[in-house]
Amino acid sequence: MRTAFYISDGTAITSEVFGHALLSLFPVDFAHETISFVETKEKALEVKALINKTAKKSNEPPLVFHTFVNHEIREIIDSCDGIIYNFLEHFVSPLEKQLGISAKPKAHRTHSIHENSYDYRIDAVNYSLANDDGSNISNYEHADVILVGVSRSGKTPSSLYLALQYGIKAANYPFTDDDMEELKLPSFLVPHKKKLFGLTIDAQRLMDIREGRMSNSKYSSARQCRMELREVEKLYKKEKIPFLNTTKLSVEEITAKILNQTGLQRYKY
Amino acid sequence: MRTAFYISDGTAITSEVFGHALLSLFPVDFAHETISFVETKEKALEVKALINKTAKKSNEPPLVFHTFVNHEIREIIDSCDGIIYNFLEHFVSPLEKQLGISAKPKAHRTHSIHENSYDYRIDAVNYSLANDDGSNISNYEHADVILVGVSRSGKTPSSLYLALQYGIKAANYPFTDDDMEELKLPSFLVPHKKKLFGLTIDAQRLMDIREGRMSNSKYSSARQCRMELREVEKLYKKEKIPFLNTTKLSVEEITAKILNQTGLQRYKY
Repeated sequence: MRTAFYISDGTAITSEVFGHALLSLFPVDFAHETISFVETKEKALEVKALINKTAKKSNEPPLVFHTFVNHEIREIIDSCDGIIYNFLEHFVSPLEKQLGISAKPKAHRTHSIHENSYDYRIDAVNYSLANDDGSNISNYEHADVILVGVSRSGKTPSSLYLALQYGIKAANYPFTDDDMEELKLPSFLVPHKKKLFGLTIDAQRLMDIREGRMSNSKYSSARQCRMELREVEKLYKKEKIPFLNTTKLSVEEITAKILNQTGLQRYKY
Repeated sequence: MRTAFYISDGTAITSEVFGHALLSLFPVDFAHETISFVETKEKALEVKALINKTAKKSNEPPLVFHTFVNHEIREIIDSCDGIIYNFLEHFVSPLEKQLGISAKPKAHRTHSIHENSYDYRIDAVNYSLANDDGSNISNYEHADVILVGVSRSGKTPSSLYLALQYGIKAANYPFTDDDMEELKLPSFLVPHKKKLFGLTIDAQRLMDIREGRMSNSKYSSARQCRMELREVEKLYKKEKIPFLNTTKLSVEEITAKILNQTGLQRYKY
């Protein structure tokens, strides 16, 4: 199997996203290797030796995705026996022409604590954890969004992703069996109705997920799942709460669609 | 201010990372606009109209970062009045030559539920939440890693990030004031010593963070913060627990360094 290296002087997250987006276009399996914080010439020489060793072991040269801006380190990596893909290189000079200014590369540009948005994100994570699963119903005036839905419809991972990635204070509140008879909006949610966003899910998928947690229970029964979903969807429509079916969506897709539909402001790009 | 558009037929996360990495090289502010799930020609025409309207309002054409693989949609976006940066385009044909096969573009390639790693990640998020802040000390045999440290040293956001991004089951356990006299490893952590990873932080930064939560308390006092940090660092050294100072690090950097130092396997790339 061919090896793909993702290398950077910082977290290497950008190199990973870049390389992964490209390699996912090809129906081939790769061995993945991320090497972060390559900040010195010594470390770069070690990495070069590792790439060369990997190249020797295999008949095919490794693919090397990197984003170095430091010239000395970059030259060392570029001189290895791998095939180099440096996505910054190709785009910097057209951008310089377009913007009429020179690039000012610094190490650790992205994904660092120096981004303005950093404290927002940690605050948002703390908020979302403290307001997960209806644990703190007195605190919704500080929420940017309140996700609602039945148990296991995707509220918690989506709230955390909104907080961690975008600095959005996302609370979530579950509608449970006890709420279901004549389901209506709980009084403490009424003042925050504009912040509500509903999740729903196909009954079969919900049964499968709940079965994994509590098999052969009322909670995971077809009858219960269908009833809960029917009730919450009725509520969403009656109260005009925007909502989304999460059955075939990843947490990234759910949150992108929530941002799309609500126009919520992100604190991080 | 010039506008940067990030556009895709999926979440647009790849376009955002790509554009942000490039623009962060330039000391200029941009207005950012993400448009996700542009999946039809009709939607593409709307987006083109929006870009053209933005171009007209400003003296400078917007920058447009996209990753479209569908030709029809791509042609519509490429014909707008913005400046197009399509990072897939430049790299696909060199990669095809190198791999000796043709790219097989599909929509929604990355960040979707169809990635093999998806269920791992949701399981890991559930695990990390259930085992946050020492809430479930009987469950550590299922952990991939257990972060330890004093209150507010970065354990919780780091655990959640490891789980959400990499599918790693990260528990965390806090050392509190009660533990501090003659601090030693709690008995329930001893069997899992190889999974422990310590966090520490500078006393001043810890005081600032704790002051924000409980001002003028023993908890946020200089004396208490210094004592707790001295004790945990002594423990890390005595027990040979690898550890990291989080003072100047973002959650992305903390987790990248934990992966680096532990060699933990990621379930997602």
